[in-house]
Amino acid sequence: MYNPEFESMPRDEIEQLQTERLQTTLNRVYRSVAFYRHTFDAIKFDVDSVRSVREIRRLPFTTREDLKKSYPYDMFAVPLKDIVRVHSSSGTTGQSVVVGYTKNDIAHWAQVTARALAAAGINEHDFVQIAFDYSLFTGGFGFHYGAERIGASVIPSSAHGNIAKQIRVMKDYKTSALLCTPSYAMEIAYKMKEMGIHPETLKLRCGLFGAEPWGAALRARLEEMLHIDAFDVYGLSEIMGPGVSSECVHKNGLHVNEDHFIVEVIDPATCEPLPAGAQGELVFTTITKEGFPLIRYRTGDRASLMEGTCPCGRTLVRMSRVAGRTDDLIIYKGLKVYPVQIEEALLKAENVKPRYMVYLDQEDGIDAMEIRIEVSDALFNDELKNLLAVKNKVARILEEDLELVAKITLVEPGSLKGDDGGKSRVVDRRA
Amino acid sequence: MYNPEFESMPRDEIEQLQTERLQTTLNRVYRSVAFYRHTFDAIKFDVDSVRSVREIRRLPFTTREDLKKSYPYDMFAVPLKDIVRVHSSSGTTGQSVVVGYTKNDIAHWAQVTARALAAAGINEHDFVQIAFDYSLFTGGFGFHYGAERIGASVIPSSAHGNIAKQIRVMKDYKTSALLCTPSYAMEIAYKMKEMGIHPETLKLRCGLFGAEPWGAALRARLEEMLHIDAFDVYGLSEIMGPGVSSECVHKNGLHVNEDHFIVEVIDPATCEPLPAGAQGELVFTTITKEGFPLIRYRTGDRASLMEGTCPCGRTLVRMSRVAGRTDDLIIYKGLKVYPVQIEEALLKAENVKPRYMVYLDQEDGIDAMEIRIEVSDALFNDELKNLLAVKNKVARILEEDLELVAKITLVEPGSLKGDDGGKSRVVDRRA
Repeated sequence: MYNPEFESMPRDEIEQLQTERLQTTLNRVYRSVAFYRHTFDAIKFDVDSVRSVREIRRLPFTTREDLKKSYPYDMFAVPLKDIVRVHSSSGTTGQSVVVGYTKNDIAHWAQVTARALAAAGINEHDFVQIAFDYSLFTGGFGFHYGAERIGASVIPSSAHGNIAKQIRVMKDYKTSALLCTPSYAMEIAYKMKEMGIHPETLKLRCGLFGAEPWGAALRARLEEMLHIDAFDVYGLSEIMGPGVSSECVHKNGLHVNEDHFIVEVIDPATCEPLPAGAQGELVFTTITKEGFPLIRYRTGDRASLMEGTCPCGRTLVRMSRVAGRTDDLIIYKGLKVYPVQIEEALLKAENVKPRYMVYLDQEDGIDAMEIRIEVSDALFNDELKNLLAVKNKVARILEEDLELVAKITLVEPGSLKGDDGGKSRVVDRRA
Repeated sequence: MYNPEFESMPRDEIEQLQTERLQTTLNRVYRSVAFYRHTFDAIKFDVDSVRSVREIRRLPFTTREDLKKSYPYDMFAVPLKDIVRVHSSSGTTGQSVVVGYTKNDIAHWAQVTARALAAAGINEHDFVQIAFDYSLFTGGFGFHYGAERIGASVIPSSAHGNIAKQIRVMKDYKTSALLCTPSYAMEIAYKMKEMGIHPETLKLRCGLFGAEPWGAALRARLEEMLHIDAFDVYGLSEIMGPGVSSECVHKNGLHVNEDHFIVEVIDPATCEPLPAGAQGELVFTTITKEGFPLIRYRTGDRASLMEGTCPCGRTLVRMSRVAGRTDDLIIYKGLKVYPVQIEEALLKAENVKPRYMVYLDQEDGIDAMEIRIEVSDALFNDELKNLLAVKNKVARILEEDLELVAKITLVEPGSLKGDDGGKSRVVDRRA
């Protein structure tokens, strides 16, 4: 255990600590963030009146829409000179949420990802290959600082470059722990097979995978193909990045770092809190964040809280693995994108109707996206080179605006009618 | 000045400090690195005999070939558990040099890049957008920790993703300092023009550019197009990464951080030291590095040392801007590649002869590479789709093996004869 004093604290002490830190946070946001001052005033909420962490239910929710309106820096609770790092919640900017960290925020972030690594048995003797993207995306940096804390040898290979290189680095540099998205890990596993490299000839021992929902079947496959122990890690940029919760060796739920976050599960329709065991929407309140504190943030992620104690000795509450989304947000290769964003991008390409369908598939554990778009009659009967030009233009816009790389298929006018009967423009056929 | 006590230390004190640190380093490498024990023993060099930094000339050189032979970890001077970070000297692995850092090495690295940033007037109020690649390449990480030390707001946008996004981030997040390769900065400048964004509407004030040689003409162009002060920074992964030397506001030579590195300029043919003002090959000795110390490392970079004091008050010796290479190493978009590596990659693609020419151009300040390759007679007269398949295969091999993206042109057998009269396979037509 990296922080036994917090990870195995008696329940009453955790709640006392949470209450104190919640009080401090409420005072901070009321004083420094116009959005919270207004929402608290609107319901005549007195920030000094909170006596117990259970009273959190009196507080209003914060939504992704609220955050977007504050773009870029209006939710920051400290002067800009105290912000030492800027990340964003997804690949896009105009539509994205910008998050800011103070020096203390970065230290806390390192602490919680160090816990996740330690829970998987990683120590200063390990070579940790971080194949999460290092950029405005929080995946790479979150774990980087945690692995540094542990004293491991960090190999910041990032997620770009090609898979063959990741494998050569893994082999030559004697990597013992691999960190990336589960779909990237599958790509690595397949390529390794193709290259004729047997996992038992490597030093690889474990993997921490996250940034997209994945299930038991994919875990079994990754463990078998890579000869590793595979652990689930959870987080989101709005709250902190990776390290919000993670699995211990029992792999039965993810321990939430409750000294930094208060977790609730609510019914997404009624917004009422749900009891342990019931699946609903995860809601987090940060209680140590200085730069970008959030009160009751609705994540859109579906999960449940688990009752009972964990044999690992951690007293931190566990959440189930994320089962999907409560909204139409598409999580695709670590990128978050709403159908409406795809629609907006398509409108920029002339000659295509904003009539489209998104198909998500998992091919051998790897995410694939096809966007079928109707084109005008005239164009469809036009020369092939014009069709190709439109296709390339759409692909370029999606990549420039949303960093989204997908298979684009142009279809005849009217041909999407069948699929378009329902409200949703997204068909998720992934496991 | 970030470290006035070192940056403006009287010359005799610098030399005294260098002598002491050199003695410690020599003892360290003799004790811990088999390569140095052997090379020192071979010339009966007594590590305790060095009394002055000037005696460095008695020591043998270290070459890139020596480092390659030690792949991956044989030059490390500490146990692997003390290594906290691994980088490599270029995009390739099999041909690359793996470098390791201890905790102290990382702290020193942050210190010297902080000096470079401070010398450009960057402080805790700045938003520093780091568009160097964050990966095994040292560019991104080197400056990241330095900018953190300064207390600036770091925007780790990295060099991947698209240029339009870099510009949106620059605009929306109020970036005041841009860090990247000079050719990437040019791409940003052109795209900004294309997007109709005027630099005077941005907060951008300065740029630090490096990782490839660039000259006065490109500086003038970048300063004009981006409305900034542009500074040159120098470093190489083998020695530390960025931060080995950098410009002050007088932009008349790069101050070498002599409390960490001893710099010499030698005649590449005779290996004799050259006097100040004479251009030759830069040679560095690290005197604080623990993980990967190097003695008299021949960089292959051509420059001279400058006499006289700098009006900025720094007493650290200055080197001229790098004028090019002493060998046939190609530095292309921050990537280092030898013609022989291209040749090896080509040999993997059947149907092409290892008869090729590399053309380097600078189009509006942006690096471009064309590789012309001769194909067999049979293939050249074959169907177009077969030619395309070969082209794609070559492109894929170059990218997978060397991370090199270049324009591939297949040419008729015998057509490269004219260009191939000389020894060199590289025609560098860049400014």
